[in-house]
Amino acid sequence: MSLTPSMAAPWKQLILSALETNAHLKHNRFIQLATVTPNGQPSNRTVVFRGFFPESDKIQINTDWRSSKIEDLKNCPFGEICWYFTDSWEQFRLSGRIDIIDASYPDPAKLQLREKAWFSSSLNSRLQYLVPHPGLPRIVDEPEEGVDLDPLKGPVNAFCVLEFDPEKVDYLNLKTNERLVYKSEKIGDRMRHWVIQEVNP
Amino acid sequence: MSLTPSMAAPWKQLILSALETNAHLKHNRFIQLATVTPNGQPSNRTVVFRGFFPESDKIQINTDWRSSKIEDLKNCPFGEICWYFTDSWEQFRLSGRIDIIDASYPDPAKLQLREKAWFSSSLNSRLQYLVPHPGLPRIVDEPEEGVDLDPLKGPVNAFCVLEFDPEKVDYLNLKTNERLVYKSEKIGDRMRHWVIQEVNP
Repeated sequence: MSLTPSMAAPWKQLILSALETNAHLKHNRFIQLATVTPNGQPSNRTVVFRGFFPESDKIQINTDWRSSKIEDLKNCPFGEICWYFTDSWEQFRLSGRIDIIDASYPDPAKLQLREKAWFSSSLNSRLQYLVPHPGLPRIVDEPEEGVDLDPLKGPVNAFCVLEFDPEKVDYLNLKTNERLVYKSEKIGDRMRHWVIQEVNP
Repeated sequence: MSLTPSMAAPWKQLILSALETNAHLKHNRFIQLATVTPNGQPSNRTVVFRGFFPESDKIQINTDWRSSKIEDLKNCPFGEICWYFTDSWEQFRLSGRIDIIDASYPDPAKLQLREKAWFSSSLNSRLQYLVPHPGLPRIVDEPEEGVDLDPLKGPVNAFCVLEFDPEKVDYLNLKTNERLVYKSEKIGDRMRHWVIQEVNP
């Protein structure tokens, strides 16, 4: 079964339109992802929106397995994305579950998505996964040129893909002063039933 | 005792410089604040940086007492700010405790800060605290002109000020590929001792 456009989540078109309106801005795909640390405190960082997974409303984010967000997500698999479009003055707050697709993921179809994500990344992006452990003290003497990347080789272990499945979307338009809240319930394994409500901004 | 510039936190000047470099951008003071909801999930939204409190490194954020972040903070008083400067490609992640200064706050000095924050807000900003409950269903028939604001009158109950006290600051410069982590320990009631470490980006 494939999802026809009318079966896509009702907020998806709003995001696609905002991406188009803000397409001239390099940072239009920069989003802030909040997670909860193992000691129960909030954590927040900028990540890049890599698009929606094929025929779904799930969002793709590439990340390094060694980054602290992975530890956060193993402990609490929920995230909230805050996405502010600086030109159209639109804010999306998307909350939902996050699945970590790493090298040892049991589903071959997901591993294929990971491989596809790797090869559609630029060589420069791929190189980031071969450099020393992010967040650890920098050893200045370390030679940077030591890194060797074969463009035909598949994903390295540190490369993983986050599959973000939005359950609730809070949309705010600061130009029209309009705020819409989309809430969902899961129907079966792949579908969600969405309810929209206009709320006070 | 007043804080001399040399006693300010070592990351403060980096923020002030970034604000200057990005001063031509209307959104340079828009920051993403993550909190944890009472059910332990992450929450994330854009708020406005209103400056540092006088002679301190604490950050001022104005908010509506009726917004969900207040409930979050009553339950877990920690926040993480993610601040991405879109022109200079600098990211600051500031984590720390948040104090809610509302109308019933016991310290008169803090109540004075709240009053000052109210009067330094534009009349339009102040009006936002008089409109219907944010996040509740919108009643379209409600007359918008019914709101009356006396410019000389002090803060309304819904107006409160968040005092964000950074304990850790993670600075990333995407142009120079430099990452610095500032960690602190409290010394007495007002001072912090900061330790800086360069880490892998």
